[in-house]
Amino acid sequence: MGERLLVIGGDAAGMSAASQAKRLRGDDLEVIVVERGRFTSYSACGIPYWVAGDVTERDKLIARSPEKHRQNGIDVRLGTEAVAIDVAARKVEVRHGGTSEQLGFDQLLIATGATPLRPPVPGVDAKGVYGVQTLADGEDLLDRLANSPRRAVVVGAGYIGIEMAEALVRRKLTVTVIDRAEQPMTTLDPDLGKLVHEAMEGMGIDVVTGTSVDAFETTSAGEVRAVVAGGTTYETDLVVLGAGVRPNSSLAAEAGLPLGASKAIRVDERQVVRDHEGIWSAGDCVETYDRVSGRYVHVPLGTHANKQGRVAGTNLGGGSATFPGIVKTAVSKVCDLEVGRTGLLEADARGAGLSYEAVTVESTTRAGYFPGAAPITVKLLAERGTGRLLGAQLVGREGSAKRIDICAMALWNAMTVADLAMVDLSYAPPFSPVWDPVLIAARKAAEVV
Amino acid sequence: MGERLLVIGGDAAGMSAASQAKRLRGDDLEVIVVERGRFTSYSACGIPYWVAGDVTERDKLIARSPEKHRQNGIDVRLGTEAVAIDVAARKVEVRHGGTSEQLGFDQLLIATGATPLRPPVPGVDAKGVYGVQTLADGEDLLDRLANSPRRAVVVGAGYIGIEMAEALVRRKLTVTVIDRAEQPMTTLDPDLGKLVHEAMEGMGIDVVTGTSVDAFETTSAGEVRAVVAGGTTYETDLVVLGAGVRPNSSLAAEAGLPLGASKAIRVDERQVVRDHEGIWSAGDCVETYDRVSGRYVHVPLGTHANKQGRVAGTNLGGGSATFPGIVKTAVSKVCDLEVGRTGLLEADARGAGLSYEAVTVESTTRAGYFPGAAPITVKLLAERGTGRLLGAQLVGREGSAKRIDICAMALWNAMTVADLAMVDLSYAPPFSPVWDPVLIAARKAAEVV
Repeated sequence: MGERLLVIGGDAAGMSAASQAKRLRGDDLEVIVVERGRFTSYSACGIPYWVAGDVTERDKLIARSPEKHRQNGIDVRLGTEAVAIDVAARKVEVRHGGTSEQLGFDQLLIATGATPLRPPVPGVDAKGVYGVQTLADGEDLLDRLANSPRRAVVVGAGYIGIEMAEALVRRKLTVTVIDRAEQPMTTLDPDLGKLVHEAMEGMGIDVVTGTSVDAFETTSAGEVRAVVAGGTTYETDLVVLGAGVRPNSSLAAEAGLPLGASKAIRVDERQVVRDHEGIWSAGDCVETYDRVSGRYVHVPLGTHANKQGRVAGTNLGGGSATFPGIVKTAVSKVCDLEVGRTGLLEADARGAGLSYEAVTVESTTRAGYFPGAAPITVKLLAERGTGRLLGAQLVGREGSAKRIDICAMALWNAMTVADLAMVDLSYAPPFSPVWDPVLIAARKAAEVV
Repeated sequence: MGERLLVIGGDAAGMSAASQAKRLRGDDLEVIVVERGRFTSYSACGIPYWVAGDVTERDKLIARSPEKHRQNGIDVRLGTEAVAIDVAARKVEVRHGGTSEQLGFDQLLIATGATPLRPPVPGVDAKGVYGVQTLADGEDLLDRLANSPRRAVVVGAGYIGIEMAEALVRRKLTVTVIDRAEQPMTTLDPDLGKLVHEAMEGMGIDVVTGTSVDAFETTSAGEVRAVVAGGTTYETDLVVLGAGVRPNSSLAAEAGLPLGASKAIRVDERQVVRDHEGIWSAGDCVETYDRVSGRYVHVPLGTHANKQGRVAGTNLGGGSATFPGIVKTAVSKVCDLEVGRTGLLEADARGAGLSYEAVTVESTTRAGYFPGAAPITVKLLAERGTGRLLGAQLVGREGSAKRIDICAMALWNAMTVADLAMVDLSYAPPFSPVWDPVLIAARKAAEVV
């Protein structure tokens, strides 16, 4: 074999890179993947739907098993944790069970992902407090749910927190969601967050906003029994941490590799760690270029992890690929409410010192006269003067979510709202009013910028 | 009043222009609209759904009634037909009932729309042969359906023909569709048209392709009783003409106004008739710039008519607007199959002398493990060498159609498939696999161009 590629982390980014590099170079490249868990290439985004019962078994969330990867010539080592990187000596110390080993490398890819944020308060490590990051987390929670708990508290009202709250309501638990922010889903402006808030209450979820968790109370057996927040004690049978994640970059930092302001690993557009040829990184542990703001940000999403992994793998495989950045597109589902966003929020625009106008329009997902026409709210931000689209958010019923992609494409191409208003989007009564809601919003925005 | 604007035709383009101009100029502009029919601003695209019973009453298809337009200060004259334009003298001869009148104008907008193609064969004007163009056509057909016919023949397997066939099947008729082409829906390549063909047969529609209609046989009372095509006689109780439309441009042509190769009226990007300041045209009677091929084409769709009418109205109102052209985007629904297309077909690309590659991928509308994940087929055409996206087609189940807008946005911005493959599109398991089907297709295309 010519070279050895060592990959730390066997999830989306790591395995995409490993697979692509191996496919391109075959026997010329030895590929070893060390993964501290028991699984590879799984969909963490699917965990809430597994907990809810939509996905019936764990293995459906696994895109490619360790065995499959091994059949493709990749040496996957499960239960193996990297504990130190020696950049100068080109080796990594790994631990498996009680033993430790030094693995040399020619090329190293760091795909250590992200770690759930844990509120730094008493009791956070109690039994009955669950993360939603790994398949093992999902299994632990499902085991607990098998014992018929009645009440749950979800800490954090971001995507994962809300999806988990819905899953638990559907499993007949009484659910309280607690978040520090003014409205749930701070990836939206508060006016659209309010619509999400209302939808959550409509599902029967108790939503407590503007409130931080002070402590978790535990039983003498060390099990969580209540959450104390804002002077109130919420009795509960279990807690789910849905307060987001931070990049799992400590291993890289300890090795002297550069981190950005977000504490994520700094990489160039080829996914090479800055100023460290031969050391690569991809996925939830890296920072990413935001094409709209021109800043580097940490946006841990499976879609970026897959693309970045593939880019790294293509380059490792002798090809040439670059990751062109992101525009912060995301969608989610809250009961039958669909939520999408891309680009800057109002707070982001203000923070960047941009002068902007915001318009919000109400329309329908289909022609108004067509059965199933459902309400959709579209909000656009455009730069005053230039008319450049800065951001888009939408909240609506069935058929709304994927319209955010139109706005993502407009941001990607730095279009003005006036240009966007005239694009030849598809129209037929079952799918859209004759002016698509996005076009209506763009037209209104063009009138005021 | 300062000036008089005379509008010929009170549907989407004409009334959009009239409304916008009146809104901007108020009492400074007298606006007269002559419309030979009984309605204004209606959705012809909705007629198949009205016939099917999805839309329960005619008036739901009317976006704005003549009375509403009159309340906005527009002088709408129904049952009034323009029969001659005198460009030099700035006047139009109109007929209302048995009387005729000359109406002078300062500005003239021609929005005469399109006319259904009628096969030039014996019997085409028989009773029981229905167009699908006006609300009156819809009323006539519904009256006939009230008398429990058993069989119908639809001539033409384009969008309207297929939608009408589905509507009639849902009304329990036995339906035969006859078309000259190799496959239904020639706005798709034949390989995707085949999927539509299969879906139609799955609905119980008898699909006869590669066959022209030779004659309509009639009873002694002058009612259609059979369609003769390709040597076979198809007995029927009624016929629907769904063979497309031609621009209704004869009035303009007789007045010496310029037509393009498609026989549609030639306009500039402000919607002014070429070399005729003060004479405007918009909607299904004009030709339109195709941004992908660089040619002028005739694409009669309500979405263009609305935009063009608004552009003309803005300019007439003292503002400044241009219609930037189209990329030939369209969607349709065949039973629960969703069909989208944009840009060039293979035949178009060959006709334009372009060297291209075509890729087709099968994927799913949601994450594969998510309930309701449905098949979707995406076909992309990309220029060899440059990698520029040339066209896209997709056929799939629920959640497929609006993805064509991603491709329309890519064409609009002249993106390469390699660029498209890396765009930050939305991802969540209920809405998309981690690589959206469009991204997968773009990635594959980028590998081969």
